[in-house]
Amino acid sequence: MRISRFILAFIFTISSGVLSAQEISSPDGSFTLSFSLDASGAPTYQLNFKDQPVIESSRLGLDLINDSVDLHMGFRILDTETTSLDETWNPVWGEESEIRNHYQEFLVKLEQVSTERKLNIRFRLFDSGLGFRYEFPVQEVMGHFAIAEELTEFAMTGDHTAFWIPGDYDTQEYDYTESKLSEIRDLMESAITPNASQTPISETAVQTALMMKSEEGLYINIHEAALIDYAAMHLELNDKQMIFRSHLTPDAQGVKGYLYTPAQSPWRTVIVGESGADILASRITYNLNEPSKIDETAWIKPMKYLGVWWEMITGQSSWAYTDELRAVKLGETDYSKVQPNGKHGATTENVKKYIDFAAEHGFDGVLVEGWNEGWEDWFGNSKDYVFDFLSPYPDFDLEGIAAYAKSKDVKMIMHHETSSSVRNYERHLDEAYQLMKDYDYPAVKSGYVGNMLPRGEHHYSQWLVNHYQYAVEKAAEYQIMVNAHEAVRPTGVARTWPNLIANESARGTEYQAFGGNKANHVTVLPFTRQIGGPMDYTPGIFEMDVFNGSHVNSTLANQLALYVTMYSPLQMAADYPENYKRFPDAFQFIKDVALDWEKSVYLEAEPGYYLTIARKAKESGEWFVGNVNGLDGRTGEIPFDFLEERKTYIAEIYSDASDAHFKTNPQAYEIRKVRVDSKSVLEQFSAPGGGYAIRIYEADKSELKGVKKLK
Amino acid sequence: MRISRFILAFIFTISSGVLSAQEISSPDGSFTLSFSLDASGAPTYQLNFKDQPVIESSRLGLDLINDSVDLHMGFRILDTETTSLDETWNPVWGEESEIRNHYQEFLVKLEQVSTERKLNIRFRLFDSGLGFRYEFPVQEVMGHFAIAEELTEFAMTGDHTAFWIPGDYDTQEYDYTESKLSEIRDLMESAITPNASQTPISETAVQTALMMKSEEGLYINIHEAALIDYAAMHLELNDKQMIFRSHLTPDAQGVKGYLYTPAQSPWRTVIVGESGADILASRITYNLNEPSKIDETAWIKPMKYLGVWWEMITGQSSWAYTDELRAVKLGETDYSKVQPNGKHGATTENVKKYIDFAAEHGFDGVLVEGWNEGWEDWFGNSKDYVFDFLSPYPDFDLEGIAAYAKSKDVKMIMHHETSSSVRNYERHLDEAYQLMKDYDYPAVKSGYVGNMLPRGEHHYSQWLVNHYQYAVEKAAEYQIMVNAHEAVRPTGVARTWPNLIANESARGTEYQAFGGNKANHVTVLPFTRQIGGPMDYTPGIFEMDVFNGSHVNSTLANQLALYVTMYSPLQMAADYPENYKRFPDAFQFIKDVALDWEKSVYLEAEPGYYLTIARKAKESGEWFVGNVNGLDGRTGEIPFDFLEERKTYIAEIYSDASDAHFKTNPQAYEIRKVRVDSKSVLEQFSAPGGGYAIRIYEADKSELKGVKKLK
Repeated sequence: MRISRFILAFIFTISSGVLSAQEISSPDGSFTLSFSLDASGAPTYQLNFKDQPVIESSRLGLDLINDSVDLHMGFRILDTETTSLDETWNPVWGEESEIRNHYQEFLVKLEQVSTERKLNIRFRLFDSGLGFRYEFPVQEVMGHFAIAEELTEFAMTGDHTAFWIPGDYDTQEYDYTESKLSEIRDLMESAITPNASQTPISETAVQTALMMKSEEGLYINIHEAALIDYAAMHLELNDKQMIFRSHLTPDAQGVKGYLYTPAQSPWRTVIVGESGADILASRITYNLNEPSKIDETAWIKPMKYLGVWWEMITGQSSWAYTDELRAVKLGETDYSKVQPNGKHGATTENVKKYIDFAAEHGFDGVLVEGWNEGWEDWFGNSKDYVFDFLSPYPDFDLEGIAAYAKSKDVKMIMHHETSSSVRNYERHLDEAYQLMKDYDYPAVKSGYVGNMLPRGEHHYSQWLVNHYQYAVEKAAEYQIMVNAHEAVRPTGVARTWPNLIANESARGTEYQAFGGNKANHVTVLPFTRQIGGPMDYTPGIFEMDVFNGSHVNSTLANQLALYVTMYSPLQMAADYPENYKRFPDAFQFIKDVALDWEKSVYLEAEPGYYLTIARKAKESGEWFVGNVNGLDGRTGEIPFDFLEERKTYIAEIYSDASDAHFKTNPQAYEIRKVRVDSKSVLEQFSAPGGGYAIRIYEADKSELKGVKKLK
Repeated sequence: MRISRFILAFIFTISSGVLSAQEISSPDGSFTLSFSLDASGAPTYQLNFKDQPVIESSRLGLDLINDSVDLHMGFRILDTETTSLDETWNPVWGEESEIRNHYQEFLVKLEQVSTERKLNIRFRLFDSGLGFRYEFPVQEVMGHFAIAEELTEFAMTGDHTAFWIPGDYDTQEYDYTESKLSEIRDLMESAITPNASQTPISETAVQTALMMKSEEGLYINIHEAALIDYAAMHLELNDKQMIFRSHLTPDAQGVKGYLYTPAQSPWRTVIVGESGADILASRITYNLNEPSKIDETAWIKPMKYLGVWWEMITGQSSWAYTDELRAVKLGETDYSKVQPNGKHGATTENVKKYIDFAAEHGFDGVLVEGWNEGWEDWFGNSKDYVFDFLSPYPDFDLEGIAAYAKSKDVKMIMHHETSSSVRNYERHLDEAYQLMKDYDYPAVKSGYVGNMLPRGEHHYSQWLVNHYQYAVEKAAEYQIMVNAHEAVRPTGVARTWPNLIANESARGTEYQAFGGNKANHVTVLPFTRQIGGPMDYTPGIFEMDVFNGSHVNSTLANQLALYVTMYSPLQMAADYPENYKRFPDAFQFIKDVALDWEKSVYLEAEPGYYLTIARKAKESGEWFVGNVNGLDGRTGEIPFDFLEERKTYIAEIYSDASDAHFKTNPQAYEIRKVRVDSKSVLEQFSAPGGGYAIRIYEADKSELKGVKKLK
């Protein structure tokens, strides 16, 4: 069998007139990508890192709908092109102010012999891994086509350890499971925890970005970049052979995508390194996206914000104005005639309290949820006309609040929960954005809770991916920043549309009030969810025992560290002002921490266990360090060699007390102020579910007085 | 069994504390409606006409989704109300200038005993039949609910003759079949002819408006009125018991509707009479719709129009600009770089020719299809971004044509083919309507050809019914008139939104170029499709042998008659100007015929066989008579007693020659001018598939000179 295949391949190679195996190397030579057609004329690729395979020979191609000859075999190579690029670009916001885009590119032009169809595959090999995509050029024999499935394989070299969540067409809001690939099948059922909308795929399907570690100590991350007008990809594991295969999100009829030439798939990415830090430092995802399509970006500004939100999440107040209405007819229901429930959060009075607090403590914005009519029956009813995004409740003075916020130099952040009724949202989008402009709201948090309308569609199908993109591009017309929750997980599209300042698309802080997250959750997210872009994780909870009885599985110091470790240009301080007033010294860190960075240094990075990042603020030049820790207490050693030599700094260290614990003693923190320089090494304990946060700033003599040196 | 049921019913009646059988009569006493709860507490109704049952005892109710106790039995009567109304209203346009709305109303308020749910059923009994609907009042135990099926029954009294088309979720574009109800099952397969999008329902499902005749000579018509935010109803026949049951159009998941209180179903209508004329004269459908929601209606004006259309339908020219493109990327495809196909219809030059002809012959408007980019791949590709409704082809000078039309006092009619990509249409609706205002287009012909996007949705589901309504209401904001093709069949909604000036929603003239319609098709349409509102049938074909080899099954005189028999405030003269120039004398009738009427008299009306209508024009006071004939030649006798007594008129009679025949000799017509008065009786031959058209106007002595009296 093996021999006959080899002979066939050999014959095919001769007859096609070109070499069927080709190889390129990454700029620094650490990676090798080889491409070949197998005996059946199927495209295959293999990725080596330092001469060892990371992805073993894996097939490429697609199954098409209503097509007698699918697009995954019988090809010949028409032509190949090898090029390279080395450029540097400046993101509007980000973990660093300059990003190098440096790769070798290999473009292989294929023709399916029996059908004369052309399929190109473009590989880009970076020093941190691989990106590749399918391209469908304009051609006589192929205009429109529909995808039954994409057949991209990622053949693993062994039974790696993975940090995974269940493959699901409608949610990513799961806790991560750490297991061997071979254990996924047995663990799947318990990994599928309840969600407001969920459609798990199979016993071995997982989502991207998927973080793995090999027994040899390699860190491997599979995701996608530039997901535009295409269904989101999941990974279906063949757990006998340890081969992942792409599994796209279907539409209501099971079709995975409708394309027409010229077209391309998103990039499939494989980031590889010898440490977790290599994964976090890779910029492959952004680099594979197009440059910004927004020319004038001065209106896109990072924001630190408070919000009328946590009090609803914890059940203390309500989004809804009244408990009387079984159903609301927007434009007909007269709210002035119903009895308020007395616990509505978005009242003018309450909002002004938040504005006052924001102004007092230097926050940029205030988010208000539940400000608009319709929250009485918004969820679970497949209600089409669920919100108009225009009509405030009678106790929310839209105009008065706007004026008050302006007088305090605070920006209001709009909230557009769509209840996944996306047609309704699109119908109101122009007016809703215009209302924001009229009242000076620079940003919107949008939401897609619950099952999709149109019914049968899924959150991550091409139809919806197209919608989220539409909402972002239209927002750009209005110079509005978007923070979309429950939308498809990001894939670096924010490079092209930097007004997409954040997404949720993972299990965020809200689940701490819904029974809690795993205490090591935040040590995984940067390796998974955040590979594609910033997350609006909404950290900053100081009171872990919340009103509804749920417990936040985190220490207070860990909460502070999240402002550094969970990169986002949009950062919330999610707890009540009252709780910040209880801990003003700790709150100071949230006030001080920057939002936008000149550079980031990944000091320690072990998914599931610990993560320490140092970042230099863009404007002030101050450094901030964040450490989040896993389930066991740990003392780390951090050299401060990221600091400029021959300068002296003050470090304000917010850390867990020695008896701190995410469950039993979360509010035990210590704050100390020490003198440091580039030769300092910090030995620092982090409690279970804990961490620490540090502000470091250059200090002159007068400031240094009385500040002791770090020991 | 019978006895025990009776006893149960009796006991129930006693215990419910109210009479379980109640009866009302129509204003003139001809109809009796009785309502009762049966032994199981199921609501039932029976309709009698002149003491004979028309609808035998039939059940009412609904099956709900995820509901252990469905909403069709176990009720008790809480209360009943009997009221009446007699009012007259004036439609913006129509078959008559005054419509009397005169009924007895019976409202029964039910409570389902085990669930405490309230369901009201409102009956309105007119002198021409019955309307009833379900109402779901605001109540504690029922807010949102989803419909599995509506269970409304219409129990026929016998094996009636029906004029039916197959029940289908996506098309009404079928020829009618005349058969006994018992024959539907055997004839269904052959009745389902191909269509661009079709989803037939079952072997015995038919569409409304369904026209029937009983053996006793009763004419019975079942349809619905005020179809708003609800799925369109089909009728599923139990052909053993001759009971129709409602069958709603499902969404992609099979759900038939999502409602929330207060809500109501559309009205279910049963129009009954002793002649076909009684059916046509009934205004039940409009009367059951709400009064106009457009206050200022001066901008809504009937229009007679020409169009760049028939030349595409017959294959002589094309909608598309080029044959080169397999796929079009709107905004990216550069049409200036492709080879025109040389047969594009919507060229500036060709359009100006139509404008010239329209101006010369007094037409109000010119429709142009294929003016905008995207026609190369618009059909059958599930293409989302298929048109932008804004970008003209390079050979269509939008601005120049608008100026030219204005200089000739001709209005342009816009064309918006959506290719059933409704999200895309809604995204562009505002800009598209604004473009129309910018270039002074007062009306739009919209189209929904092909399968629906979102995929899995159907043309007649609640989701799409909601869309068509949205497009009409938004058009009203822009003071734009809508003529929607392939949309759901009308149900009198034009009373409420009189800018909905026409629909297609049936097999129109275009099928005469696709193999031909049955020659008696137009004798059926007024009894079926037009019960709900005007049809843009696009008559006026003078050359029956069309370029693509198809034959128009109609005589030329029949084509003229359609302007009278097929009522619409929007009437096309669909043939080429060249063909009108060949028959200027016959063309004169199309130029003369009015569009809006003071009153209509239904002189002869036998569905499938013949139909003669006289209408008095609103402004001129002229009368127009149209006769369309079935498959056999026939001589009818028409008394002119609709004319004012003691006045003398000239009648211009356009009729079939004695040897005319729709197939073999369609262009054999005669025109004669005679003197008539209210005592005149016209004996007039109509050929197979033929007919006649008459213009009648009061004449003074000088005009009457030399005009002979009608013999």
